[in-house]
Amino acid sequence: MIPNLPEPNETIGELTKLLGQLAAFSDGEGPGVTRLLYTPSWANAQRFLADVMAEAGLAPRFDAVGNLYGRLPGTDPDGDVVLTGSHVDTVRSAGQYDGAYGIVAGIAALAYLKKTYGAPRRPLEVVSFCEEEGSRFPLAYWGSGHVSGLYDWRSGADMADEDGVTLGEAMRDCGFGREELGECRRDDLAAFVELHIEQGMVLERMEKRIGIVETIVGQRRYAVTLEGAANHAGTTPMTMRQDAAAGAAECIVRLEALASQWGEPLVATVGKIEARPNTPNVIAGAVDFTLDIRHADEWRLNAFSELALSEIERIALRRRLRHKITPWLATKPVPMNPALARSAERVCQHLIMPYRRMVSGAGHDAQVIAPLCPTAMIFVPSRGGISHSPSEYTEPRLLADGVAVLAAMLYELAYEEQPT
Amino acid sequence: MIPNLPEPNETIGELTKLLGQLAAFSDGEGPGVTRLLYTPSWANAQRFLADVMAEAGLAPRFDAVGNLYGRLPGTDPDGDVVLTGSHVDTVRSAGQYDGAYGIVAGIAALAYLKKTYGAPRRPLEVVSFCEEEGSRFPLAYWGSGHVSGLYDWRSGADMADEDGVTLGEAMRDCGFGREELGECRRDDLAAFVELHIEQGMVLERMEKRIGIVETIVGQRRYAVTLEGAANHAGTTPMTMRQDAAAGAAECIVRLEALASQWGEPLVATVGKIEARPNTPNVIAGAVDFTLDIRHADEWRLNAFSELALSEIERIALRRRLRHKITPWLATKPVPMNPALARSAERVCQHLIMPYRRMVSGAGHDAQVIAPLCPTAMIFVPSRGGISHSPSEYTEPRLLADGVAVLAAMLYELAYEEQPT
Repeated sequence: MIPNLPEPNETIGELTKLLGQLAAFSDGEGPGVTRLLYTPSWANAQRFLADVMAEAGLAPRFDAVGNLYGRLPGTDPDGDVVLTGSHVDTVRSAGQYDGAYGIVAGIAALAYLKKTYGAPRRPLEVVSFCEEEGSRFPLAYWGSGHVSGLYDWRSGADMADEDGVTLGEAMRDCGFGREELGECRRDDLAAFVELHIEQGMVLERMEKRIGIVETIVGQRRYAVTLEGAANHAGTTPMTMRQDAAAGAAECIVRLEALASQWGEPLVATVGKIEARPNTPNVIAGAVDFTLDIRHADEWRLNAFSELALSEIERIALRRRLRHKITPWLATKPVPMNPALARSAERVCQHLIMPYRRMVSGAGHDAQVIAPLCPTAMIFVPSRGGISHSPSEYTEPRLLADGVAVLAAMLYELAYEEQPT
Repeated sequence: MIPNLPEPNETIGELTKLLGQLAAFSDGEGPGVTRLLYTPSWANAQRFLADVMAEAGLAPRFDAVGNLYGRLPGTDPDGDVVLTGSHVDTVRSAGQYDGAYGIVAGIAALAYLKKTYGAPRRPLEVVSFCEEEGSRFPLAYWGSGHVSGLYDWRSGADMADEDGVTLGEAMRDCGFGREELGECRRDDLAAFVELHIEQGMVLERMEKRIGIVETIVGQRRYAVTLEGAANHAGTTPMTMRQDAAAGAAECIVRLEALASQWGEPLVATVGKIEARPNTPNVIAGAVDFTLDIRHADEWRLNAFSELALSEIERIALRRRLRHKITPWLATKPVPMNPALARSAERVCQHLIMPYRRMVSGAGHDAQVIAPLCPTAMIFVPSRGGISHSPSEYTEPRLLADGVAVLAAMLYELAYEEQPT
């Protein structure tokens, strides 16, 4: 256990200053932060972070796709790297915290450890992953996906953004995508700890200060179409209708009830609905809607998905509606490392910091890195659960709590002798 | 009772020929007929109908807004006019029958009566109303509304179509909107009989050949907005949601169930639904939907509307959703003339023609003329209930049935001595 922890008041100042500086790297006129992969604001943000790392004594380097690392060398010549960090890119009109907090907190934790304890046994690195959000190009995890070997920039970077610029062009225009830059794939990782805002309201509602993620949920997404008959709203008696809107509504109500019955951590959401012809005085002839299902347990995720689809089918058949269900996304749940979660729990208990073991309902870089090495994911509360919005906010005191837990975990991993 | 009725085979040929010729007056490349008020195709259609009327011995004249009348003078110098007909304009991509059938059938009936029985006591006129559908300008019943005094072209014709052309400009460019043309308002009507396709599937399903309208329904239309919170679909447990889509879905299911319980002739329809932000992985923060309620009885129409709104309110409150309900259309039910309905019924019984007394769930010119004089509305079946579509269809034999009933009714009204 770490003997001394960062002084909250000192950390708070540094954290909020850096988050504010980072938020200034933003494109566009709109409210909030817009920092898309390989745009000028993105490039400036990474350069700024490299400078910050260098000032903190963390030697910066970029890999071939623009992931930025700041390194604190270890004394053990054979030691694998203990990594922390998150992603630097944002959605459009984002807040200051999603991704950025994990990088800034990582720098703060490493700077504190270096200053207080000197060189670690194992090397410590903080990473600013180049991309996670999928906001500019039709893919996500472009940063961590190169670290894990999921992607290779040498092939397949031909998808275009909405202006027709390909990922490969954007990457090269930013100075990346060159062989002479470092290899992206890492096989030298001992552990990865990602600190992130929760982007949900569970910690706030439960009055917890730290979330320890046990699993990042698996997802199933479906596109559903129900087709009936677009008849006249006045001349078609209720008994003669094949109303696709009423059919879709019954599905939505039923799916919500089933998901509530199953209970946490299952969630099921119909977020997108399109009726046709979508006219007040015409019975809807067809309705398209999406279904997003998430669970931390793969078997239950599959079982609920099967049940949901069979309920949609049953409702459609009873209402004489044709139905078409197209799966378009399926990811498996990714468990975090149990030993690291226990370590996080011990730290919270030691600090008398109210915590909650939980699942992450959102995807994170941690799920991409998890196959490479023991991985942990730590949350701090998000006010009102709001994220992907300029209103995203976490109190500075809670940001400092996260840094304290992170520093303690990194101390254990990098400074203490590890059981062999 | 009429001693001789039109020979179906003769009528059929004339009807289908005229309907086909009229359908050729259409703008645009798309399927079906598009004949909007004061467009070239509309003007050509009215000129064509004037020629057809003249050939049939029905003296044609236009009024100031372009309503076209064909007149068969009566022998009684004091006799008020017995009028039949419907509207010449169409929705976009319409079929051949909506409106057009009532005009063409009226011409056929008057031509038959003239040929068979000579001059009537009372004058007989067939009208081709210039506009009913509301497809070009944001108003409807521009034709019959001038006959009843609802509109006056001298004022307020300043609303524009989607190209920015005002109604007044379009009218004058077509040669109308001039004082020297005939007065639109009629105070010389003895009766009005409108023959129309049902635009519903009731007659077909019930295997009836004639519908006798007792009432044209009243309508209430509302715009409803439910507002919750647009949270993350993954990180927000089911118990912490304020899901506007699930709330709207519950309203839709509930409204459908209530309307079905109340039974005919009540209908309630949610035809338009818009979710915000309408994204698969975000819980809907707000949903707008429309509610269209129709009933033939004003008290019941009001009572159901009150009930529907209170149910929406109840559901919104229970789900912690803000709600806003805006009424944007309210029309009263318009009863048709009972004596004329009985006359239609006697004709059907005499002809051994299966008929059904019914309500009209759609609006028609008859409801605008009804305050002026005893008014009747007669339906023939629509195949599959389909209307406002190129697939609109009624078998020629059924079209001829309508002409026979119309001719018999007009004979009673114009040739027979009327009870004083």
